[in-house]
Amino acid sequence: MSIDPVLARIDETLPEATERLLALLRIPSISTDPAYKAECDRAADWIVEDLKDLGFDASKRPTPGHPMVVAHSGGEGPHLLFYGHYDVQPVDPLELWDRDPFDPELQDTAAGKVIRGRGSSDDKGQLMTFIEACRAWKEVNGSLPRNLTIFLEGEEESGSPSLIPFMKENAEELKADLALICDTGLFESKTPAIVTMLRGLLGEEITIKAANKDLHSGMFGGAAINPIRVLAKIIASLHDENGHITVPGFYDGVPELPDEVRAQWQNLAFDHAKFLGDVGLSVPAGEHDRTPLEMIWSRPTCDVNGIWGGYTGDGFKTVLPSEAHAKISFRLVGSQDPHVIRENFRNHIRTMVPFDCEVSFHGHGASPAGQMEISDPAFEKAREALTEEWETPAAYVGCGGSIPIAGYFKSVLGMDAMLIGFGKDDDQIHSPNEKYDLESFHKGIRSWARVLDKLTAE
Amino acid sequence: MSIDPVLARIDETLPEATERLLALLRIPSISTDPAYKAECDRAADWIVEDLKDLGFDASKRPTPGHPMVVAHSGGEGPHLLFYGHYDVQPVDPLELWDRDPFDPELQDTAAGKVIRGRGSSDDKGQLMTFIEACRAWKEVNGSLPRNLTIFLEGEEESGSPSLIPFMKENAEELKADLALICDTGLFESKTPAIVTMLRGLLGEEITIKAANKDLHSGMFGGAAINPIRVLAKIIASLHDENGHITVPGFYDGVPELPDEVRAQWQNLAFDHAKFLGDVGLSVPAGEHDRTPLEMIWSRPTCDVNGIWGGYTGDGFKTVLPSEAHAKISFRLVGSQDPHVIRENFRNHIRTMVPFDCEVSFHGHGASPAGQMEISDPAFEKAREALTEEWETPAAYVGCGGSIPIAGYFKSVLGMDAMLIGFGKDDDQIHSPNEKYDLESFHKGIRSWARVLDKLTAE
Repeated sequence: MSIDPVLARIDETLPEATERLLALLRIPSISTDPAYKAECDRAADWIVEDLKDLGFDASKRPTPGHPMVVAHSGGEGPHLLFYGHYDVQPVDPLELWDRDPFDPELQDTAAGKVIRGRGSSDDKGQLMTFIEACRAWKEVNGSLPRNLTIFLEGEEESGSPSLIPFMKENAEELKADLALICDTGLFESKTPAIVTMLRGLLGEEITIKAANKDLHSGMFGGAAINPIRVLAKIIASLHDENGHITVPGFYDGVPELPDEVRAQWQNLAFDHAKFLGDVGLSVPAGEHDRTPLEMIWSRPTCDVNGIWGGYTGDGFKTVLPSEAHAKISFRLVGSQDPHVIRENFRNHIRTMVPFDCEVSFHGHGASPAGQMEISDPAFEKAREALTEEWETPAAYVGCGGSIPIAGYFKSVLGMDAMLIGFGKDDDQIHSPNEKYDLESFHKGIRSWARVLDKLTAE
Repeated sequence: MSIDPVLARIDETLPEATERLLALLRIPSISTDPAYKAECDRAADWIVEDLKDLGFDASKRPTPGHPMVVAHSGGEGPHLLFYGHYDVQPVDPLELWDRDPFDPELQDTAAGKVIRGRGSSDDKGQLMTFIEACRAWKEVNGSLPRNLTIFLEGEEESGSPSLIPFMKENAEELKADLALICDTGLFESKTPAIVTMLRGLLGEEITIKAANKDLHSGMFGGAAINPIRVLAKIIASLHDENGHITVPGFYDGVPELPDEVRAQWQNLAFDHAKFLGDVGLSVPAGEHDRTPLEMIWSRPTCDVNGIWGGYTGDGFKTVLPSEAHAKISFRLVGSQDPHVIRENFRNHIRTMVPFDCEVSFHGHGASPAGQMEISDPAFEKAREALTEEWETPAAYVGCGGSIPIAGYFKSVLGMDAMLIGFGKDDDQIHSPNEKYDLESFHKGIRSWARVLDKLTAE
């Protein structure tokens, strides 16, 4: 059975699909702000109604926070679960928007048509690519793709407090052969991409205490040890002159890139000058012997996310402070063990703390890196589907940030996830004037139709 | 004429004198915080009224900042000028205070009675020792000591921006034969002391800017430079492994201690174990080849008084910040030139700032060290007076803090200054729970009566 009639139907009905997305975008489902609780509920209801119209067995499922949406197409065959989120980021600063963020419209721009509004790219536009693909499929074939589950949450932008409990309580219902996640982007706005490497994250807060109170730097300066200087020395020593991290054993479990992946990344011709130039930088600042893509995708990091101590207000205070603090985080890759690294880090710091100072630590989460099993044939099938749609070889890529849902699917439900998305780098997600290119929406729908076709073929 | 009746009067009226000090301490005259501008004004008014009641020709004198208080007793004879400051340090962290810093009280402690509250020791309690000495003198003798000027500022804790212009504009009025400054302490809380060496102070605020906005540490971590790490490296490099400061030319003008002063300091048998032990420390942290007294009196320092950047609130935010900041100060000695050191420091930092980062500086005052002319017979007279009052030989000592006013009196008005004060090492000035011993206040008043007696004797 050819997928072409479904693709033709998608092309014909794009105006109607766009209108449906605009209707969903008009609902201000800001999950982090309790004032918008009813709107989150309304967004869930809207989607449930739409999925019911399409023939899904769909329901809104209560949680202590915002509701989940769960829908099943029924039938036999490999069980696929699609994940997206219907909640959106806050819109402040509102004055930087060119129009009401919840009065979306299709706009003509020099770079083509865009759908402008909060949530257009993150993640309502993306989740609707999948639903619209199902709609065209149903309209052409008379029935939905078989054994499909749609699972949408409304708390992704506010830390997903209800997600793991809900997944645990409904594990049998949600456990599928593979999860499909649509919350990522094209590589450099042009190459279709499947994310197969996600960095883990380890957070540590460190406090150096010296004197038992703040001192006058005139009275004690020269004789009393300064915890800010101690902390600065520790931070300065965490990297060597080549940018390598000096915590003992830190690189245990950091794999070298397989040659084929390295070759694939070289073909991507990552424009690091533009990537850094867009934020006012020019020189890749990581390990001297690594490429920029390795620095952000496949190499671990150590960064200071915050530092404070002494007097930080206006003017000057000649205090010799009793304490200094820093928040330090590590991005992890491969099989680096966050708990081992935490212990090694703490022991390493302890060896650097001079007499008269004490160090204390507060841990802030520890998640390992994620590595998808691309040996599962579904990955190559999806890559083929994306390559056909975009007429550019799709790539397996890394992601420097952590996308917790992928880890939860693995740890809670024991299933792998395939991350495919159509956002572009200039979509301004989490910022004013968020947009989603009509091309992303249109070819995103077509992409899912092709992926579903490959994955559900007997 | 014996001074004894004045001393007796001081003893009898100590409760009333204490009440007056408590009233002044209730005025939160924090000069560095613009929110307290009116309170600084109110403190000046309070003192002017008190001095007028005493028979001084007193007035509040406007400046672009907080007002000065100037008062004259009139008459002939050697012209003595007394200096103090009515402004106080900020009180943060407020939660470490055992009571409202501006609700002072006389407390019984195991070590005797203390006056507790912000400014009790620095400097309202100290300046009131002189005013109370004048009051008792007037009440006993019927008139104030002759040809006395009282000169109080309200910006000592915020860099004294108006001081030099005011002194220049009013040079004829303020120029005296000798200045008396009450803003220092007893040596080791027991030996009366006249400070003859004062360290200078140079303050610098440094900002490192990297990216043009805060970045997500997942997306950019590894590739984008982190300004906190840059700042930490700079701070760590400002001292070598022996504790020497690495700014080029920094030690130009730093004298070795004369043999006789070194001998006198050895006789003081400074108990550095107690000095550091009282604040929870044990090891002198300065230059490895210097004694603890040298570290705090006769050697220059470089300290970090504050540092901040990135996320410093509760929890964790994986931000890669665009900026990092530090407040850095230098204590100066001998003939070190603060302006030359400022330039050398800035140029030195500039050589350490990597590509993609910018550094900017904000100066916070620059005062050279001071050295008094103890050959003036007034010094020996005052030392006799203090020795009689405290029944312990008074000493000429150094002072680790900078008391810029002493330098200004010399450079702007061409007069020497004699620094006598009664603070104790555990007064917690600039810290929570500041106090002034009632003994300091009481014997301080008596000391000034004796000093005035010696210096105004025909």
